[in-house]
Amino acid sequence: MSAIEELVTELSRLPTIGRKSAWRLTYHLLKQPAEQSKRLARALETLTDRVRRCEECFNLTEEPRCAVCADSRRDAASICVVEEPSDIGAVERTGEYRGRYHVIGGRLSPLDGVGPDDLTIDALVERVRGGAVREVIIATNPTLEGEATALYIHEQLQPFGVTVTRPARGLPVGGDLEYADGVTIAQAFASRRGMA
Amino acid sequence: MSAIEELVTELSRLPTIGRKSAWRLTYHLLKQPAEQSKRLARALETLTDRVRRCEECFNLTEEPRCAVCADSRRDAASICVVEEPSDIGAVERTGEYRGRYHVIGGRLSPLDGVGPDDLTIDALVERVRGGAVREVIIATNPTLEGEATALYIHEQLQPFGVTVTRPARGLPVGGDLEYADGVTIAQAFASRRGMA
Repeated sequence: MSAIEELVTELSRLPTIGRKSAWRLTYHLLKQPAEQSKRLARALETLTDRVRRCEECFNLTEEPRCAVCADSRRDAASICVVEEPSDIGAVERTGEYRGRYHVIGGRLSPLDGVGPDDLTIDALVERVRGGAVREVIIATNPTLEGEATALYIHEQLQPFGVTVTRPARGLPVGGDLEYADGVTIAQAFASRRGMA
Repeated sequence: MSAIEELVTELSRLPTIGRKSAWRLTYHLLKQPAEQSKRLARALETLTDRVRRCEECFNLTEEPRCAVCADSRRDAASICVVEEPSDIGAVERTGEYRGRYHVIGGRLSPLDGVGPDDLTIDALVERVRGGAVREVIIATNPTLEGEATALYIHEQLQPFGVTVTRPARGLPVGGDLEYADGVTIAQAFASRRGMA
C-alpha cells in the first residue's frame, strides 16, 4: 500500500471521517510544510505513552492522580459521577462545581454487552465506603441508558446513607452532556434533586 | 502542554476539524488500543518522507514518475490539465480517460498573489513543445479562477498548433471537480469542445 493510501486508511478509522474527508486531509497535509505532519505524528506517538487513568477517579492524566484529585482545595466530600473523561471538561468549564469526580467509563447497555463489571462502579462504591463522602451527583447522560445506569449506581450506594442526586432536567433529554452549553449545565447542577 | 492538549492543538490545525472535533477524536483514540494511534503516527511520519512529485506531470508519487506516466499504455498524445493531484483521482474513477495528466498545482489568483510562475504552466508548455502531444484537455475547476486559468493556458499553447479543449459544462458551475460524481465527469469529458 502506498504511503498516501496508508494514511487515508488510518484516518478513515476515526469517527466522523469518511474516505473522502481522509483524502482531503491527506492532500492538505501534503501541501503544508513536512513539519506539520511530523508534529501531528509525534503528538499521536506520545499520546498513549504518556496518558493514563487517575488511580482515584479514572480521569485521564499524565500523573498517578489527575489535576482535580491532586488539588486539596477540591471538596472530597462531593463526588460527581460521569460516563467519560470528556464530560469532566464540560462540567469544569462552568466553574460551578468544586468537588471531585468519578469516571465510570461508559454506561450500562445490556444490548451492547456492557454490564456493571465493565464500568468502575465497584471502585466508586469503595470510595463511598471509605466514609468521607457526603454527596454523590450522578451526572450520567440524560439518555435512557444513562438514567438506567444512574438508578443502578443509586441502588449500590444506598447502604452507605450518602446523599445521591442527579442534575436537574435542564439538560436536553436524549442529548449528550459533552455538547451542552455551560449555562445549561450550571443550572442543571444548581437545581439537582435527591433521588427518590 | 499536556500530551492530550498537544494532540488537540495539532488536530485543530487540519481543515474542517475544530477544537471540539479535535477533543472528540483524541478521546476516541484514547479509548482504542494504543496500536491505532501508533499506526496513524507512523503513516503521518512516512507520508512526507516517501511522497514526492512526478517529474513529468507533478502528480503525487513515491517513484520518480507516477503510475500514469509510467504506464506505456496511456496515450501520451493527450494531456489532461488539472489543478490538484486529488482531481486526477476524480477523473480516473470514471475509467473514461486513457491519456496522461499535468498538475499545475493551483489556479491563477491575482488577489491571493498566485501568478503563472507559481504554477507548473512552463513545464506544461515544454511537454507540448516536445511535439508528441495532439490534444490538451484543460480540466481546471469550472469556477471564475479556473476559467481564467484555462484561458491563460490556452494562450500559452496557441503557438504549437495543439488542439485545446475544455470539459463540457456538465460540471456544476461554481463547483469543485473533486466532488463531482463520475457520470457527470464522464459526460463532461465526452462532450468536451474546442476552445474558441
